[in-house]
Amino acid sequence: MIKRAETMIRELKEQMRGGNGTVAITHLFSQDEIGGKARLIAKIELEPGCSIGFHEHQNEEEIFYIISGQATLDDQGDMQILNPGDAAITKGGQSHSLSNNGDSLLTVMAVILLYC
Amino acid sequence: MIKRAETMIRELKEQMRGGNGTVAITHLFSQDEIGGKARLIAKIELEPGCSIGFHEHQNEEEIFYIISGQATLDDQGDMQILNPGDAAITKGGQSHSLSNNGDSLLTVMAVILLYC
Repeated sequence: MIKRAETMIRELKEQMRGGNGTVAITHLFSQDEIGGKARLIAKIELEPGCSIGFHEHQNEEEIFYIISGQATLDDQGDMQILNPGDAAITKGGQSHSLSNNGDSLLTVMAVILLYC
Repeated sequence: MIKRAETMIRELKEQMRGGNGTVAITHLFSQDEIGGKARLIAKIELEPGCSIGFHEHQNEEEIFYIISGQATLDDQGDMQILNPGDAAITKGGQSHSLSNNGDSLLTVMAVILLYC
């Protein structure tokens, strides 16, 4: 099944997880369309100054892959700068935040895999 | 856990699944590093003229997301051109091929979710 970019569901979330500004989440496929154990496969866009606040994942893990821009990731309290091509995994029971402290749009591919 | 682009495992596969030329597969994380039910999360690169041959997925599904370039996808016999931002899902029991018939590098994010 093909999903064209212009037909994907695009959610705008304000102050997501207590973060700043707006986060745009473009769902490649809805959860109903995914047959495997994943609850999100999406492109996440953060304008400069925007962020997703620090939060924990329970019984699931999230993988980020930086497509463009520069991300500041708080990985369990360890602050790291991620550039295009870099990735991060936050396991079940771990916490992270994601911020765009750069001066261009940050685009990240996000996959959340369920453990059960 | 952070994975820097330069530390990712990059596989080169010749005539993959009976396709043409070379396919570069950059694994964001190894299967051991993934806790959820997925066996591949990778960036796939195809130079012009290269392809992954037509093949079936059993007990798993594969999601493609076009990052850059133009893909020709044979989706169960239906030939489609995919552009950056477009996506495709090939469910368990279904078949696909992926070709770069364009004139620039094709970069695709691929996720294979296991059903069991």
